[in-house]
Amino acid sequence: MKKVSAYSPATVANIVCGFDILGLCLNEPCDELMLEITDEPGVHIINKDDFDLPVDAEKNVSGAALLALMEEAKDVKGFILTSKKNIMPGSGIGSSAASAAGVVVAANHLLNNRFTKEDLVRFAMNGEKVACGVKHADNIAPCIYGGVTLIRSVFPLDIVCIDAPELHVTVVHPQIEVRTSDARQILKQQVLLKDAIKQWGNIAGLVAGFIKHDYDLIGRSLEDVIIEPVRSILIPGFHEIKTSSKEAGALGGGISGSGPSIFMLSKDAQTAKHIETAMKNIYDKMGIAYHTHVTTINKHGVKIV
Amino acid sequence: MKKVSAYSPATVANIVCGFDILGLCLNEPCDELMLEITDEPGVHIINKDDFDLPVDAEKNVSGAALLALMEEAKDVKGFILTSKKNIMPGSGIGSSAASAAGVVVAANHLLNNRFTKEDLVRFAMNGEKVACGVKHADNIAPCIYGGVTLIRSVFPLDIVCIDAPELHVTVVHPQIEVRTSDARQILKQQVLLKDAIKQWGNIAGLVAGFIKHDYDLIGRSLEDVIIEPVRSILIPGFHEIKTSSKEAGALGGGISGSGPSIFMLSKDAQTAKHIETAMKNIYDKMGIAYHTHVTTINKHGVKIV
Repeated sequence: MKKVSAYSPATVANIVCGFDILGLCLNEPCDELMLEITDEPGVHIINKDDFDLPVDAEKNVSGAALLALMEEAKDVKGFILTSKKNIMPGSGIGSSAASAAGVVVAANHLLNNRFTKEDLVRFAMNGEKVACGVKHADNIAPCIYGGVTLIRSVFPLDIVCIDAPELHVTVVHPQIEVRTSDARQILKQQVLLKDAIKQWGNIAGLVAGFIKHDYDLIGRSLEDVIIEPVRSILIPGFHEIKTSSKEAGALGGGISGSGPSIFMLSKDAQTAKHIETAMKNIYDKMGIAYHTHVTTINKHGVKIV
Repeated sequence: MKKVSAYSPATVANIVCGFDILGLCLNEPCDELMLEITDEPGVHIINKDDFDLPVDAEKNVSGAALLALMEEAKDVKGFILTSKKNIMPGSGIGSSAASAAGVVVAANHLLNNRFTKEDLVRFAMNGEKVACGVKHADNIAPCIYGGVTLIRSVFPLDIVCIDAPELHVTVVHPQIEVRTSDARQILKQQVLLKDAIKQWGNIAGLVAGFIKHDYDLIGRSLEDVIIEPVRSILIPGFHEIKTSSKEAGALGGGISGSGPSIFMLSKDAQTAKHIETAMKNIYDKMGIAYHTHVTTINKHGVKIV
């Protein structure tokens, strides 16, 4: 096979209390891409959307990921990538990860799956480096593995799949820009030990809640005393959205990745829709433009078509 | 019934990376106690050991826990407690927790189990306050519930039982004194965010490893970048013990509670014995007196005889 199409899904990094170590994969939205092996050296990028992303492979998230893969594949001269992004760059739901993860999964399919998923995460992290300057895997890993993933360690890479119960996810993306690099810069480099203890109690609770399928424990553990108080300042209406979503039945939720998207988890589709309505009401009143997504956890990650 | 006997077990708080939030219960050693309801007001304490612990109820760990219980029980005038401690105070394997938890479980038995386990943890924490000035539950909770427990939050109390696979535990107690209050004071009140992230990755990994019965993941996650580097300074031979134990097959381990005891986890009884030998060799060479315990995880906590 020389050509393959794939859907690469959005992801929610951090999951409130798991800054830099947890992420989950969504069924929607997904980027669409087509990848073809070619004898022409290098990565050739054709963008079929309006985001005006760079076509120079080294400056392009997908390009950087493919170049890393090619360095290890050795026998591949070049790829032609046709990309149609449906996940808005800068939305906070893993747009760059979808670009990077989608292409390496597609490339691996064309190469008869010679690489492990862990290899693919390594390659794709080069895309994140282009996007925000840091090789992080909390969007990449769930995008490739599906479900909820724990990145216990990045160097060396240690990814653990966390079994989770059925969960519905409501996402609202206010149309404001928060750059991942800016969202990182405003974080304090030191935290109080007592806050760190609270945070790791919640992370332990969240992981246990997922694996034990204990919705109440998941809800109680969705609390972030370290990152959210700082980053939420960048997102208008954050606290109103959170309060209204919980009133509408959300188990909990918070900033998706570095924002500005806000996500909420719930037990059923109807509650997820109620939460969407609550979110819309807030931003309608505030006069802020937005997109919403009502979806579920994607258990499989990037999908080859 | 007016009189009951109980065994109250030792516990390991923190479990390396879970400072203040995780603990596990041991089958050995255990304190022995007898508790009797009496019409004579107050808590009357008879010590059947050589530790010279206070008999004034308010200054005694068991006494303080019983007084807290009596305040809610209302219809109990007094208790007579006969206590024989086999867990050395100051050893770092939950000696004060065994005193506090043992008596409230025994008292509850005499009162037809009118209180929940969570109530009992609340009462027993008053004993910890007497012992070290802080109401912490990371020894109390595993002592009462058995197994591995997560204390997601102390105020409000939120205890989660973590299912764990069969594990063998080797403990060495060097005969030096480390006061819990001193061990708390030397900790820095601020930690680097990057260290906190590493720590919560490990905690998430450890909890997932326990519940998934994944020994390798448990081993990889038994790493503490925040507390151990500071507290291990107080324990002679700590790094030698840790290195030799791992060479002898330990999954991992570290300081038990605030020390000076060191514990190591392993998969089978034979390895646990090998680890004991390795530990003994180190302290024999260093000329440090010690006790060792080779035991397993106690799944039931305080035992009424």
